[in-house]
Amino acid sequence: MNLSGVFAPVPTPFDDRDRVDTARLRAALTKWMKRPLNGVVVLGSNGEAVLMDDFESDQVIVAAREAVPREKRFIVGTGRESTQAAIKASKRAAEHGADAVLVRTPGFFKTQMTSDAFVRHYTAVADASPVPVLLYNFTALTGVNLLPAAVARLATHPNIIGMKESGGDIAQVADLVSGTPAGFNVLAGAAATFYPALCVGAVGGILALGCAAPDACVRLFELTRAGRHDEAKTLQREPVPIARLLGATHGVPGLKAALNLLGYDVGLPRPPLAAVAESVLPALRDALAPFEEIPA
Amino acid sequence: MNLSGVFAPVPTPFDDRDRVDTARLRAALTKWMKRPLNGVVVLGSNGEAVLMDDFESDQVIVAAREAVPREKRFIVGTGRESTQAAIKASKRAAEHGADAVLVRTPGFFKTQMTSDAFVRHYTAVADASPVPVLLYNFTALTGVNLLPAAVARLATHPNIIGMKESGGDIAQVADLVSGTPAGFNVLAGAAATFYPALCVGAVGGILALGCAAPDACVRLFELTRAGRHDEAKTLQREPVPIARLLGATHGVPGLKAALNLLGYDVGLPRPPLAAVAESVLPALRDALAPFEEIPA
Amino acid sequence: MNLSGVFAPVPTPFDDRDRVDTARLRAALTKWMKRPLNGVVVLGSNGEAVLMDDFESDQVIVAAREAVPREKRFIVGTGRESTQAAIKASKRAAEHGADAVLVRTPGFFKTQMTSDAFVRHYTAVADASPVPVLLYNFTALTGVNLLPAAVARLATHPNIIGMKESGGDIAQVADLVSGTPAGFNVLAGAAATFYPALCVGAVGGILALGCAAPDACVRLFELTRAGRHDEAKTLQREPVPIARLLGATHGVPGLKAALNLLGYDVGLPRPPLAAVAESVLPALRDALAPFEEIPA
Amino acid sequence: MNLSGVFAPVPTPFDDRDRVDTARLRAALTKWMKRPLNGVVVLGSNGEAVLMDDFESDQVIVAAREAVPREKRFIVGTGRESTQAAIKASKRAAEHGADAVLVRTPGFFKTQMTSDAFVRHYTAVADASPVPVLLYNFTALTGVNLLPAAVARLATHPNIIGMKESGGDIAQVADLVSGTPAGFNVLAGAAATFYPALCVGAVGGILALGCAAPDACVRLFELTRAGRHDEAKTLQREPVPIARLLGATHGVPGLKAALNLLGYDVGLPRPPLAAVAESVLPALRDALAPFEEIPA
Repeated sequence: MNLSGVFAPVPTPFDDRDRVDTARLRAALTKWMKRPLNGVVVLGSNGEAVLMDDFESDQVIVAAREAVPREKRFIVGTGRESTQAAIKASKRAAEHGADAVLVRTPGFFKTQMTSDAFVRHYTAVADASPVPVLLYNFTALTGVNLLPAAVARLATHPNIIGMKESGGDIAQVADLVSGTPAGFNVLAGAAATFYPALCVGAVGGILALGCAAPDACVRLFELTRAGRHDEAKTLQREPVPIARLLGATHGVPGLKAALNLLGYDVGLPRPPLAAVAESVLPALRDALAPFEEIPA
Repeated sequence: MNLSGVFAPVPTPFDDRDRVDTARLRAALTKWMKRPLNGVVVLGSNGEAVLMDDFESDQVIVAAREAVPREKRFIVGTGRESTQAAIKASKRAAEHGADAVLVRTPGFFKTQMTSDAFVRHYTAVADASPVPVLLYNFTALTGVNLLPAAVARLATHPNIIGMKESGGDIAQVADLVSGTPAGFNVLAGAAATFYPALCVGAVGGILALGCAAPDACVRLFELTRAGRHDEAKTLQREPVPIARLLGATHGVPGLKAALNLLGYDVGLPRPPLAAVAESVLPALRDALAPFEEIPA
Repeated sequence: MNLSGVFAPVPTPFDDRDRVDTARLRAALTKWMKRPLNGVVVLGSNGEAVLMDDFESDQVIVAAREAVPREKRFIVGTGRESTQAAIKASKRAAEHGADAVLVRTPGFFKTQMTSDAFVRHYTAVADASPVPVLLYNFTALTGVNLLPAAVARLATHPNIIGMKESGGDIAQVADLVSGTPAGFNVLAGAAATFYPALCVGAVGGILALGCAAPDACVRLFELTRAGRHDEAKTLQREPVPIARLLGATHGVPGLKAALNLLGYDVGLPRPPLAAVAESVLPALRDALAPFEEIPA
Repeated sequence: MNLSGVFAPVPTPFDDRDRVDTARLRAALTKWMKRPLNGVVVLGSNGEAVLMDDFESDQVIVAAREAVPREKRFIVGTGRESTQAAIKASKRAAEHGADAVLVRTPGFFKTQMTSDAFVRHYTAVADASPVPVLLYNFTALTGVNLLPAAVARLATHPNIIGMKESGGDIAQVADLVSGTPAGFNVLAGAAATFYPALCVGAVGGILALGCAAPDACVRLFELTRAGRHDEAKTLQREPVPIARLLGATHGVPGLKAALNLLGYDVGLPRPPLAAVAESVLPALRDALAPFEEIPA
């Protein structure tokens, strides 16, 4: 499976009574599917997966699968703290039509999460999963680091096809690439370092910015793939301000607010997350304006 | 509710097929209940709660309630990432007989976990919970810090009766005490700083060491309460080596191994956690020996 | 040498042309010497020693020695990055009348600053110094940590008589005490944890707060020494707000501003440090008022 | 002044009595000057500048100047904690023939080192320095971060011509480039991220690896400048193992040992630094072998 290109890790709409709103999810996905994205990820960090139960997760997968055409990649986040729960979630995702699963590292018992523990965990998941597995390292959220040496061991598993690395440490991205066989898909997870990650060998990205400004992300990807580095170098800083607003600054609430401004109608985040203050909207609007048309 | 004294945050036994083993849990609790502990916590961090589903959690609560006499405090961990899930878990715990619930901070969306977010979260949980609520801050595991200023606001809620602070920053413990009304129970969560925490006003502790060496913990507590600081100062370093083995060094696997050595029969940890290596057992045995009789 | 009690780590006055102002230093010391302090430290972190050259350092030592009576302890900071420079500075301090030297860990080459490196460094300094040596660990500033195991090795050196630990990690303070022989003087360096540090066996403190509110610090020390822990527990949080303003919040500029408000006339900090904004003075005044009389 | 290309931050040889050995310094520089380096830096972090006094620093500058031909850039490290000391050192360096000075951020008083403080410090130094100034940010050693916003302000000063950024955060490097005018020289300081730094607009690097394997660094630079990114991408990971041994793992002692293996005769590091253990030499030799001929 070739995962080069840009993926949108889409948020989950909730309705006014805080229930998963599958109709709005399908409608938003239909809009995204008109863009040059390679595919989508549901139930990732941006999908508020950790705030949902298993039944709700199933609802999201089933609804999204209907809206994502077969020629696009449909990836489902199935990370759990326990190995058996991650296996169960991966099986369910596969049953409901996932093309691959994206499995975030467990991270609660930090001092015990050694490379050996990660290798055991992912090997068990990959052995059991009916669909290919992507590793997923997001140290800023989990507090643990899936090191290149562990990834190099896991990359030999026939059912582990790649990895999302959300950290901005490009030396680590480069080590991931150089330590894994050609064909292992290293995907960037941070827009601010998407271009340098591509330079050192990442094949694409799963970027929150890909939800809000997909064309800008894809253009950067295409320029780099075409070896047009001078243009890429010039362009690559432009989306950083909006990427930061949707990332470190406002997180999922910022992403949802931006998408609502753009007409995606993805609703509010689930508590304890709270909607961004009204006063934040003008800054979001200004930062989006260079990339997307904002409905009046 | 007076929570002074020492509480044991007990582990959850799993059987050979990795299922919750309620019989072994009851048997172990029966042993602990003969000790001078004020009560127990089930489904805390040491209880591997994050590795279990809701059905298993219910099994643990129901089984443990049978084994814990009414004169001991029976506290149930019900922290969840989403506010509604924490509420649901707290209601279920109350229904099954919890005297109070211990609610760890959500921590996944780190940058959004402001004091305001924590106040909203805990207020909603405390409003809905049929039994009193204890806040729970464990920065080393969650990566977020429930600051004394937020606790001071929450301590005015009539259904929030105290807090477990697992960090070793005694200035923060002191701030928690001085910022909350008399009667708000600040409980230490780290054995290595139990004595200085008591000095600055903590009323007790929820200590992994309280599972493995309850009398040593209780003695330190009693000496301090009696104002016998010279003796306490001398004694307080003695259990630090074993406390560290059960904490930062080996975590839950270390605690389970130590308890198995002591005859509690609590089984193995659940993957991705793994049993400690055999080679670790002699060090555990040596560190336990000064405090408890180790069956041959 | 018994170092129990409270020491003031005094700042260095500069004149309007940014030269060391020995007259103002002597005048300020004369005021401090009327207080129940055990002694003073010159050329510590608060003394802006890292902003001065060797000639200026000598000026400070010579001037201060004149103003500090023999029955008070006169300690001089002589930490340097190189071992030979620390030795030279310690010899010069001794020559000019220091009772002891306080030697901050080198910290520039962080990854090389192992326990072995610290043991070599301090052993060489203590071998060469004509006066007793105090170790000095200030991880927040240096980025390195002089661990209790290294201190335990160094405490056997006949010319190393104690240590200032500026960190607030009371478990580490307790480990320092329990790992060193009786008579080794562990001194706290942070007012916010002075009381719990005394509880676990520190014999005193070198506290910026001891410059601004010496009686409050000494009273806390005396209550604790007398075993009057109930009173100490109540009192110990009171000076924390002013201690934080003089520490983490405003640092040396805050300390100098507070002392100027109190009539010590210590001038401005040296660039790149800058005086605190005028707007900060009311908060300093308010936080000082409960402890000291502020001249109109 | 155009600073594109690769600079070697050379170590300082000491003789058997721990004195600066200017003859060996000149001899080593003569060897380096035959390589395609753009220039050298003396008295940088790798030059153990913080372990030397002002007289020794002058010795190094004078000796090195003799050995570095005019067509190569000769840069001198003059960072000091105090602004006036940094000015004095910069004037002296200029007097002795420096082409530019490299001024590391002060970092001792961490909480006070705001962007405003850095702007004041560097403006004063640049106003006074007879030769152009390079900013120098090395957060891992100093614990402070000279942020892109401060650099953007400083880059407008006519006597500030560039910056060395030793951190591996490529997003920050990219921000430095995009926030400063064309012609402001951003130089990388970490070999493991040299290539991605060039991708986002750094014009060159001051790299410890440039001392030990200059041709490998220059080749990577030339390929990137020529737009031959496919080759650069392939080559760029090769020197990472040796770069790490000379950086995080063994630091200056590792660099000196490697250079001694290569015949540069740079002696031992100064205490508290210590020579690497003999047992480390084979790994250094192996890691160097692909890049340089190692004398028997």
